[in-house]
Amino acid sequence: MPAKIIDGKVIAADLRARVADEVGRVKRDHGLTPGLAVVLVGNDPASEVYVRNKAKQTEAAGMASFEHKLPADTPQNDLLALIAKLNADPAVHGILVQLPLPKGLDTQTVINAIDPAKDVDGLHPINAGRLATGLTALTPCTPLGCIILAKTVHASLQGMNAVIIGRSNLVGRPLVQLLLNENATVTIAHSRTRDLADICKRADLVLAAVGQPEMVKGNWIKPGATVIDVGINRIPGADGKNKLVGDVAYQEALGVAGAITPVPGGVGQMTVACLLVNTLRAASAIKGLKPPGV
Amino acid sequence: MPAKIIDGKVIAADLRARVADEVGRVKRDHGLTPGLAVVLVGNDPASEVYVRNKAKQTEAAGMASFEHKLPADTPQNDLLALIAKLNADPAVHGILVQLPLPKGLDTQTVINAIDPAKDVDGLHPINAGRLATGLTALTPCTPLGCIILAKTVHASLQGMNAVIIGRSNLVGRPLVQLLLNENATVTIAHSRTRDLADICKRADLVLAAVGQPEMVKGNWIKPGATVIDVGINRIPGADGKNKLVGDVAYQEALGVAGAITPVPGGVGQMTVACLLVNTLRAASAIKGLKPPGV
Repeated sequence: MPAKIIDGKVIAADLRARVADEVGRVKRDHGLTPGLAVVLVGNDPASEVYVRNKAKQTEAAGMASFEHKLPADTPQNDLLALIAKLNADPAVHGILVQLPLPKGLDTQTVINAIDPAKDVDGLHPINAGRLATGLTALTPCTPLGCIILAKTVHASLQGMNAVIIGRSNLVGRPLVQLLLNENATVTIAHSRTRDLADICKRADLVLAAVGQPEMVKGNWIKPGATVIDVGINRIPGADGKNKLVGDVAYQEALGVAGAITPVPGGVGQMTVACLLVNTLRAASAIKGLKPPGV
Repeated sequence: MPAKIIDGKVIAADLRARVADEVGRVKRDHGLTPGLAVVLVGNDPASEVYVRNKAKQTEAAGMASFEHKLPADTPQNDLLALIAKLNADPAVHGILVQLPLPKGLDTQTVINAIDPAKDVDGLHPINAGRLATGLTALTPCTPLGCIILAKTVHASLQGMNAVIIGRSNLVGRPLVQLLLNENATVTIAHSRTRDLADICKRADLVLAAVGQPEMVKGNWIKPGATVIDVGINRIPGADGKNKLVGDVAYQEALGVAGAITPVPGGVGQMTVACLLVNTLRAASAIKGLKPPGV
């Protein structure tokens, strides 16, 4: 029996609808319109598409969207001044600086300048630290999306053997914390791991986030395991055009896994939806309301 | 062949001697005397012994030691006022508030009040976050000691399968980060883990930090593995007196492991030595010097 396909598109749409409901409620009950500011420096075409998509979904959820486009040669101090203005702006509850930044800008300095209460990307060290010590935190969007997808298959992840492949600050490392919070047993593997196939084969839940096209083979998957594929890699297709593939050899894994996310149409769909969740959470916390029910 | 016994007493003494050398150097070259302030609230006898021991070792390393004893019924604001004073005191480079605090005092509020640059216990969320995102951080002392002990057996931990048992903020969670920094493959197990014996048996490096006397049995250990036992548990001995045992069934493990830390005389010895390391690191960073060579 082929794996159940975890439909990120449907799950993300459902999540966005629930966010929109909650936004309607906080507007009505508390006069609060959550606002998300997105800062794009330079004109990388992929980033531009992504930022446009964020703005559209933010507005569709009933939130205010603020877009700030700066030229690629913006001096660091100008960017920091904009962030300071957004930190102080009561209409802005979430600030996202689109990464990667052009050369000449120091990413860590820029991240550190964002008010942690408005850090909807969850990248500020204080949010990473709050997450790592079990406190309430704004959490990076992609790992948050992974957990939501896994929980559409398993009501509880407690006691599952979860194997994360990849140890980035954006995905792998926060996933450790989120999976511990779910009471899973967590293994984090990476480029220096020996016998990766073997380690992978013991996982009830595989989360691949390495950025290597189809690296995880079908015979690395334990029969019936749930596979969450975070990779989005562009490779030449048979027709000469580029195609998107994940970090997992999807066709092979389909015959072995119990459930799997496709690429595209899996994790990628969840990231912006989770950004909306974070913006709503940030706005509620800043306003002193109890956390939203999404 | 019985396991090599990792002698924490000797390794800690050697580390303290190296700290003392470096302290001598920064005094001579930069007129800097690192200072550690220890705050003890209440009069728990075990904490009193521990604090006295810290002060003695701090002075023996050539550092300044400041002791602040407050009554158990100290109001939270008085404690916070003392911390503010220590934060501002240029002679103080490390601040350690002895835990646990008496009832009525909120531990997290107290930790958050410590200047992260002087947080030699590495418990402030910003230090946890810096550690979790690969930035320079003050790191909790006990996990730091575990890594140093493991590296007396293995020059490099790269590619080793490390299994941590226990997910506390003080030990288990920071160990994940420190082991990732060493390029180990890391599994973190805990009370909700299924088949713990099985998971343990795959480890090249076992780190037990659960506080359960002799929970890890000899037949959970892979032959030749290195075992770091963080547990210090007091149980009734055969002679009716209490004795200290670790989280690992030491006598059983001795016949299987390649190397093992005893209890007492293992990890426990390293904690104060690592506190001295952290105080020296904090003092050097505050003074703008390059990190010390210990």
